[in-house]
This record gives sequence, structure tokens and C-alpha cells, in this order.
Amino acid sequence: MDRPTLPKGTRDFGPAVMAKRQFIFQTIRSVFERYGFLPLETPAMENLSTLTGKYGEEGDQLLFKILNSGDFLKAADGALLSSRDSRKLTQAIAEKGLKYDLTVPFARYVVMNRHEITFPFKRYQIQPVWRADRPQKGRYREFFQCDADVVGTDSLVCEAEIILMITDVFTGLGIKHYTIKINHRGVLAGLATLAGAGDKEGALFVAIDKLDKVGEAGVKEELIAKGFSSDAMNALFGILNTRGTSHDKILLLRQKLGTQEKAANSINDLEKVLDYVKAFGASADKVEIDIALARGLSYYTGCIFEVQVHDAAIGSVSGGGRYDNLTAVFDSKEKSSGVGFSFGVDRLYDAMEELNLFPEETQRSSQVLICHLDDACMRYGMGIVQTLRAREIPSEIYPDTVKLKKQLEYADRKKIPLCVVIGSAEMKSGVLAVKNMKTGEQHMQTMEQFLSTQSK
Amino acid sequence: MDRPTLPKGTRDFGPAVMAKRQFIFQTIRSVFERYGFLPLETPAMENLSTLTGKYGEEGDQLLFKILNSGDFLKAADGALLSSRDSRKLTQAIAEKGLKYDLTVPFARYVVMNRHEITFPFKRYQIQPVWRADRPQKGRYREFFQCDADVVGTDSLVCEAEIILMITDVFTGLGIKHYTIKINHRGVLAGLATLAGAGDKEGALFVAIDKLDKVGEAGVKEELIAKGFSSDAMNALFGILNTRGTSHDKILLLRQKLGTQEKAANSINDLEKVLDYVKAFGASADKVEIDIALARGLSYYTGCIFEVQVHDAAIGSVSGGGRYDNLTAVFDSKEKSSGVGFSFGVDRLYDAMEELNLFPEETQRSSQVLICHLDDACMRYGMGIVQTLRAREIPSEIYPDTVKLKKQLEYADRKKIPLCVVIGSAEMKSGVLAVKNMKTGEQHMQTMEQFLSTQSK
Repeated sequence: MDRPTLPKGTRDFGPAVMAKRQFIFQTIRSVFERYGFLPLETPAMENLSTLTGKYGEEGDQLLFKILNSGDFLKAADGALLSSRDSRKLTQAIAEKGLKYDLTVPFARYVVMNRHEITFPFKRYQIQPVWRADRPQKGRYREFFQCDADVVGTDSLVCEAEIILMITDVFTGLGIKHYTIKINHRGVLAGLATLAGAGDKEGALFVAIDKLDKVGEAGVKEELIAKGFSSDAMNALFGILNTRGTSHDKILLLRQKLGTQEKAANSINDLEKVLDYVKAFGASADKVEIDIALARGLSYYTGCIFEVQVHDAAIGSVSGGGRYDNLTAVFDSKEKSSGVGFSFGVDRLYDAMEELNLFPEETQRSSQVLICHLDDACMRYGMGIVQTLRAREIPSEIYPDTVKLKKQLEYADRKKIPLCVVIGSAEMKSGVLAVKNMKTGEQHMQTMEQFLSTQSK
Repeated sequence: MDRPTLPKGTRDFGPAVMAKRQFIFQTIRSVFERYGFLPLETPAMENLSTLTGKYGEEGDQLLFKILNSGDFLKAADGALLSSRDSRKLTQAIAEKGLKYDLTVPFARYVVMNRHEITFPFKRYQIQPVWRADRPQKGRYREFFQCDADVVGTDSLVCEAEIILMITDVFTGLGIKHYTIKINHRGVLAGLATLAGAGDKEGALFVAIDKLDKVGEAGVKEELIAKGFSSDAMNALFGILNTRGTSHDKILLLRQKLGTQEKAANSINDLEKVLDYVKAFGASADKVEIDIALARGLSYYTGCIFEVQVHDAAIGSVSGGGRYDNLTAVFDSKEKSSGVGFSFGVDRLYDAMEELNLFPEETQRSSQVLICHLDDACMRYGMGIVQTLRAREIPSEIYPDTVKLKKQLEYADRKKIPLCVVIGSAEMKSGVLAVKNMKTGEQHMQTMEQFLSTQSK
């Protein structure tokens, strides 16, 4: 029999990795809930009619499609079969697909349940998504997204709370050095007008979003090739090159774009978000207005965010923005402005590994192993392990009567920090022989003494 | 545009349902971890070569298959296409499928990682699985399984710990009336020998497993139709009809089957498991030896379990058993005896709803909503909401300056139990106007007083 393998681009998460992932998920979840966000879960499968056409043509091709059950070829068109047109045949033999992101299923949920939902609706969602992308380092075909969105209000309080939540999550994870970049689509539109972009607005945003990577010369080259004038370049980089505080940038933007009404409102929005962050009693130290921040997704219409961890060789670990109409793809009548953001769990994980930030507790399993020298000792140990478990101390009793060495090796390999060794002397005295697996030291303790040293 | 729908047999879990589901998952997870089980997650997708042939022919047909990406028809055989043989074409155009249970992926994981795993390996796994079954009440195409298994030991301590864990989970959930039924495959084999079943052992087990549902007459009718003698029926029901304590049943089984060596060992196993439960200091009151318990899955070889909740119109909510060789389907050389069990979350959920057992906390969202009468009050409220959040009290501030009535309605609909209403008087005095949404009462409290009444 062939040795089994995993499908390309998918992963098992064994106990050691799971413990660390759960630390990240639990930190994010508890922050989301502290801010009044409630959990939603949607199925892995969606109808292809729900998914198709929402991610552009490239996205459609990256959807995993599920073959209809039963005799799916029975009703398939004969000409279609002989034409070998995979794309057309797919429509005939696959009705469902795996979800590609959490946003479209969320929009579907809102449309289907709008009469029961209390707006503003604050939901979070932590689930896997699937993309038939070519797997490569850090890019998987199955990966988790962690989204939080508020829909049904255009209040900038939500943008400010996103900044607070990002800050709280990073505090919880122990990540100290990072920048929350913020910009506004209206500011970008103002820049485009200033640069005379006309219908080349999209190309302009794509180019300036790469400023970090390719530098000023690279962006200029790309834009001039696209037909932008050198005057336009000067006007543009006169703004993009601004350094200084957020206050300085807001002043400059007002000076350069203030006469454009939409841009002026957008600048006010940015100012108000920062002001709200302070009204919440939080620091805006980590927040930086980044005029070159564009973000790819075209459905953003207001503030946009991106978070960069310093000292770690990874890109952005979180991002999001405001959109005008989440549900427009399903229902053009309903308008539902909202704002959302997302954490990239795989990147956060890599950053935390690189910076060695996972707490020691996430690297062990049980707290105590009960070891024993014979069957009677094992039976005696059963009472002890239950006493520990009743105190919520994760504990195990070695299930077989084998040599002590083997039992201690088990504890060692599983990184269980403490062993309680039961021999006939311990059974007689009722005292515990507690072995610290890190130091190798062994102490005699009463159960009471032992429990008093155990924080859960 | 058509109103979007969900694929048949799948569900969204909105916030209210999620809170209750998380209560169940969290209770189960914390018990598993207290007993030293560690989490594992495997991908939704597995290679069809991993899944096929493990669940019988019927199971194979219930696998959801994923269409290969790209131009999947390019290499497909022309004759195959024109033959319209869906099953054969599937092999050519689909390499992957969605997992059908958690056991086969677990076995694959153990085979792939056997050199890194520390045995005995205690893992739990809480994940969705998919079956292309005809959806009906209580049967879904996507549903969660909650499994815990120990592999790499045949110690009956594991069986006893399963009984303890089931007890702890039910205590945590607040389910008081239930029975943990236990039997042993070796006892069933002994019965089969006694009844002269020969190669009809499988048919015998299937029939007696239905004793609860169809009664003695029904089982007899089925077995006689299958060719069992009436003497065999008398011998069989002389045992199956035994009532009394577990001790009584063990005595009777010894008397009737004790001369068969394998059956005698199995009876000893059952006795030892009950004895261990007591050695752990737990009660065996809920445990009942049920000689008619057979369970469908043919890979069980030792003790088998099933849990029935009383007073609720549902079948078994948990079950499991010991198997000789988890990984035999992938690797015939390795022998890995293990024992596992599983909770049926959907059934537990239904039972808890029926018995009205979900705690009140699972039925609310945030603990506090900050309401405000104007923009200045909202800004003042931002400091307050952050103070509450810093104390881990899930809190919200209404993000828009709208009429108080609308803000209170929001709290009411979201079942937020407390509102803090900020007006100019409260801003001046620094005292909080706290409205209890259940009683309608309003009290003035300092922040300190308010916090002292808030348990997280």
C-alpha cells in the first residue's frame, strides 16, 4: 500500500502547532468579544452562483468546485462532453464550491437574514477558506481567515475601534513593534485628480501601492510608461514624500487637496478617527497616515488599514477598510455601509515564531504526569490524578505498568513539566514525590503543598 | 438578481446559535485537555486515495469529490467521456474529496508522523465533516464531530477515563439524567458462538442492536428468517433479557460464556473497567452493561460505548470503542491498538434545547451598552467603555448619535443586560446612570460601585 500523503498546499496541525495557533485565535477572539463582536460560522460549501463573479475572472478560476453527487453525467450535454470544454462542462456537473473568503458568505448571510439581524451588526468569523492557487512558501490552498466587520453604520467610531482592537490583539500576543497604517480612498481619489489620472485611477493606485517595494524611481517609471506626465509626477510625489506626524500630513493634504470636496471630507475623516482614538483614552503612537497605502480590493470606499510588524521578515499581518455596500452583489436595493478588518493568522504565527513570542505554556501539554511502580501504585495514583483534574490542572496517569524510565521519557517528550512518582513508600506516607522535569530535582510534598504551588 | 440560498443540508450558525455551540465545544474541549488530550486539526480536503475504500461502497458514494483545477478534461479518456460513466470519469477528473469522518484522517496522520509522535498518543479533534447524504431532520451534509482517541496502548485505564470524561462533560453541560452503556465485542462474539451464528455473526449483531427499537419479538422474527434456530433464540434471550446490576450481569455472563476463552477475557475486561472507574474515585452509577449494545462499525474489537440522554427525544449523543489496529488501512505492518469516542454535537445541542439547559450567559452578547444623548456624551462614553473593556467586561458604545430609544432598542434586541446612559448631568457628576434592561430599573452608581457588581 502506498504511504498516504496530504493534498498539495494543505497542512495538518499537530498538537504543538495547534497550541500556538489556539493562543493566537483565543487572543483575537477574546478581543473581538470584548468589543461586542459576535461569532458567525458559514458552511465550507456555497452554491457556485453565490461565489462566481465576486472575485474577478482570476478568482473564479481559483474556486474549488465540488462535483455533483450521483450520476452527474446523465444529464450533461453530449456536445459539451465531446467538445472537452472544461469550463463549460463544470457548470453542468458542479453546483457547489468551497468558500474563497469570509466576506462574500457574510454578505450572503446578511441578505438572507436581514429581517432578523439587529443593525449595526458586529460579527466576527474565524474559519478556513480555500483557493486553488499554486502553493508556495507561506501560501496555502486551505488557510484560516479572522474577520471582524460592522455593517449598518457609517460611524467613524468603528474605524477608531478597529485601531483599538488591533492594539489590544498585539498587546495580548506580546508584539511590541508594529505600525498601523491608515489612509482613505477619498484621499487617493484626490491624488488621482491632481495627477490627471482620468480613467487610469486604478493603474495609479496599483503603482503607488508598490512604493515601499520598488521605490520612487520604480513607481515613476511605471506611471510614465502608463502615460502620466512628469508634472503629474511632481505633484504626486510632492505629497507622497511628506514625512512627519499625522498632524503634519493632514495639514499638507488639506493644503494640496482641500479644494476638492470629496478629498476634503476624507481628510476630515482621517482626522476624526485619530481624534476618536484619543477620546477612547488610547495612544495613536502606532498609527501612521500612509498616503501611498492603496490596498488592492476595489470595493473599499473609505478608510483603509494595514498593519506591519517590525523586525519580522513578513508583509502585512492585518488589513481592512470601509465599504459602501457589502450586499450590493446580491441585492442592489439594500445599502449597507460597513467597515471590516482581518488578521492573517499564518503570518502572525510566523512573526511570533521569528520573534520568539509564544509563551512557554503554549509549548507544553499536561501539567502533571502520575508515574507508578506497579499496579497497586497505579490504582493509588488514579485518586491523585482525579484530585488534580478536579482543580482544573491538566493531568495524566501513565496507563500501563511499565518501567519508570519509560514513563519519565514520555513526560519528557511531551514537555510535561512535573511528574508525581508513586511507590509503596508514597502510598504508605500519603506524601507525593514530585519531580521537576526541567531541573531534575525531586521534592516530597503533601497534596496540599503541591496544590498551593500550582496555578492553573 | 436571485435571492442567494444555502446548499442543501448546510447551515449558517448565527451569533445566538454560535454562543450555545461554543458553550458545548468549550465544555468538551476543557474536559479533553484536563485529561491530557491534545488538539489535532487535519485539512478539509484529503486525497481520494486516502478516503476511498474505508467506509464501504455506500460510504464511497457519499464522499464529496472536488473537481481537479484547470483544464481537467484535457487528459480525460475520450471513450470514458462518451460512455457517460460518471463513476469512472470521476476517477479521471477528481483527485480530492472532503473528509467523511475524523478517524481516517487521524489514522493517516499517525502513519505519516509515527516517528515524531510520542505514544500513547492522546489526541482530540473537533472539526466539520461532509457527507453527500440525503438531508433530513437532524441529518446534515456538513456537521461537526468531536473525537478523542488514545492510540498505542491497550490499557483499560483508557476505557475508564472515557467514562470519567463523559461524566465530566455532562456535569459541565448540566445534563443530569443519562446512561453510559458499555459492552464488549468479545462478549458479542461469545453470544454468536452460543447461538451457532457461524458466518452470520454480522447479521446477528445488526439484529440485536435493534432490540431497543423493535423489541424481542421483532429481533426473533428477523433472526429466525435469517435461519437461526429457536434453541439459539432461547439461549440468546436467556442472556439478553438479564436485568440487574452490572455485577449481576457479569456473574451471568461468566456462567453462560465463561468456558469460551475469548469471552471470559472480555468479561474480565468489563469488570476491570468498572473497577478502575471506582479506583479513580468516581461513581459507576450511570454505567450500565448492555449486552445487546453492538454498534455498527465493524472495526471495533474490544469495549464499546454508547450514551443515552433520558427525557430527550434523541438517540445516542456519544459513542465509541476499542479497535485493534487503527492504521491497518494504510500500513499493515504497524499495529496500533487504541480506543476512542465521539460526541454528537448536533444531538447534544438539541437535547440541551429540549431540556432548557443552556445557561443564561450563553444567551446574551455584550454585558454593557454605553448610550449617549449627543456627540459630547458619546466622546465622554468612549473613556468609560474602554475602562470596562480593560476589566474584560464585553462592552459596546452605540456608534451613532441617534435617539436614546433607538439605542435602548438595540440593547434589548441584542439581549445586552445593562445600559449606561450618558447625559450632560452624568458628564458633570462623573456618576453613571445604569439601566437594568430586564427590570427597567435605573440606578446611579460610581464607576467603582459599578465595577464591584460586575463579575466577568
